[in-house]
Amino acid sequence: MRLAVLGAGAVGTSVVELAGDYGHEVVAVADSSSAVVDSSGIDPETVIARKADGGSVGSEDPEAALAADYDVLVEATPTTLGDAEPGFSHVTRALDRDRHVVLANKGPVAERYGDVQAAARDSDGSVLFEATVGGAIPALSTIDDVGADHVTAVRGVLNGTANFILTRMAAEGLGYEHVLAEAQDLGVAEADPTFDVEGTDAALKCVILANVLYDREYTLADAEVSGIADLPGSALDLATEDGRTVRLIGEVADGEVRVGPRLVPESGTLAVTGTRNIVQLDTEHAGRLNISGRGAGGPETASAVLADVGRLARR
Amino acid sequence: MRLAVLGAGAVGTSVVELAGDYGHEVVAVADSSSAVVDSSGIDPETVIARKADGGSVGSEDPEAALAADYDVLVEATPTTLGDAEPGFSHVTRALDRDRHVVLANKGPVAERYGDVQAAARDSDGSVLFEATVGGAIPALSTIDDVGADHVTAVRGVLNGTANFILTRMAAEGLGYEHVLAEAQDLGVAEADPTFDVEGTDAALKCVILANVLYDREYTLADAEVSGIADLPGSALDLATEDGRTVRLIGEVADGEVRVGPRLVPESGTLAVTGTRNIVQLDTEHAGRLNISGRGAGGPETASAVLADVGRLARR
Repeated sequence: MRLAVLGAGAVGTSVVELAGDYGHEVVAVADSSSAVVDSSGIDPETVIARKADGGSVGSEDPEAALAADYDVLVEATPTTLGDAEPGFSHVTRALDRDRHVVLANKGPVAERYGDVQAAARDSDGSVLFEATVGGAIPALSTIDDVGADHVTAVRGVLNGTANFILTRMAAEGLGYEHVLAEAQDLGVAEADPTFDVEGTDAALKCVILANVLYDREYTLADAEVSGIADLPGSALDLATEDGRTVRLIGEVADGEVRVGPRLVPESGTLAVTGTRNIVQLDTEHAGRLNISGRGAGGPETASAVLADVGRLARR
Repeated sequence: MRLAVLGAGAVGTSVVELAGDYGHEVVAVADSSSAVVDSSGIDPETVIARKADGGSVGSEDPEAALAADYDVLVEATPTTLGDAEPGFSHVTRALDRDRHVVLANKGPVAERYGDVQAAARDSDGSVLFEATVGGAIPALSTIDDVGADHVTAVRGVLNGTANFILTRMAAEGLGYEHVLAEAQDLGVAEADPTFDVEGTDAALKCVILANVLYDREYTLADAEVSGIADLPGSALDLATEDGRTVRLIGEVADGEVRVGPRLVPESGTLAVTGTRNIVQLDTEHAGRLNISGRGAGGPETASAVLADVGRLARR
């Protein structure tokens, strides 16, 4: 497949780097201020080197990437809330041209799922978004295989930053602020960690899962969310004494979306450690399925993007 | 899709029972001595009631099911070794008619993978076999999504009977013979448990994984297999003292297939308990993925069969 990649952060550049390995070709890449387009295939090394030097990906206008002749638009610009722009317009412009879209950006399918599905219905192109939930974990394709009607609940640990902090707090008996500072030093937490520690990121993923499970439009406003920023270290100590620990659990069940710190058995399935994520599916006929893996990271998320591209190629 | 189901054991009857729920229709069912065929769709209740009463599924010759007008042949007759008959002939006869095949029977893809693939190449039909490895666990479809070339190793617990026995031996400090008898009473182990406790069943699943990963023909003869029948209870006690336990682990890596009892961390990912299975994939770009769930059982395995049927329907 011929790919146009929008967004040249960790995920976008990993898609550019790995596409050839999966038998695909990148014909356009754009960051927020520039683009490079080559219908005979761009050179990944050049683009990656330019980004690594802190430069722009190319000398053309970003608009040129959207206008390029591609089969699949890979939308990997940063997630935005509310109108989910500019990601949302990128999606509809590709669908208007009957092209496929693969999303790593959660915004369009978390905040405007109904509009995205409506645009897909009017298009010969399809929209896939495995990379938006749990990084390398094949959550959405497994739901698709089991059949959304046959999945009765989904829950899991869907934010690696919050999980890293909780794991360290429990293991070392340290307070939240101390561990957060450590996570920021390690690059596991952002300078502004709000999105992760207040549960917003996990909630967006759960909203996407709810949209897929119930095929109606949920947005962040429909989720009941609490984060870990106010969790006292003493709560973790008490949990440990009882053979349990605390995880930031997202859950989609009975039409509701909830994210918050929950007690889980210390050596139980949901107590993944460090930055790992886990998705647990309760199914009607096949019991419980657990899938754990790396929930974030450039190559990991790019790998989910390229799995979606592969699915489109096989259709 | 219109299904012909060969084999009316736990898996076959579950496929008959659940097919309608997944939007498919069963037009033929055969057991070893009889068949029922109805091009307008057979009534699942009648077939299930007849089998529950210990009777045959219908009044026609089994041959009639193979000759029926179906889209997908579901091969759920018992796994046989060597020539993998009669399953293998069922597969090739369906492919000769350009029909799809979905296997729950491990024989044809474990013992005659090359022959099955050759027959599929000459056919408009495809062969899928998710149900042959790990029951409800989507192992093969995940490998397909990640790309077999990008999976560097697969390992896991692939036999629920052996795992149940090891879990009980470690938890209760009981000997192998005692726990085996208990498992037989509970219906977890067969009267003749050889296939499970000597590692053959796990090895067949690993051979299938190797065939998919390396796209060349492995058979059971290529696997290095040891079981758990000779494992002394003292080995488990020693492991426990060291924070570890023993699991029957199957592994496919570096072109080799190995199955045997291995020490694993007691609260580690591979130490699933009871009859649960786990498949662990090491990938080139996305780290390690773990998928655990029910590895056997009628509805669980039927659910994997019907996921394959759904994949064929979407193509």
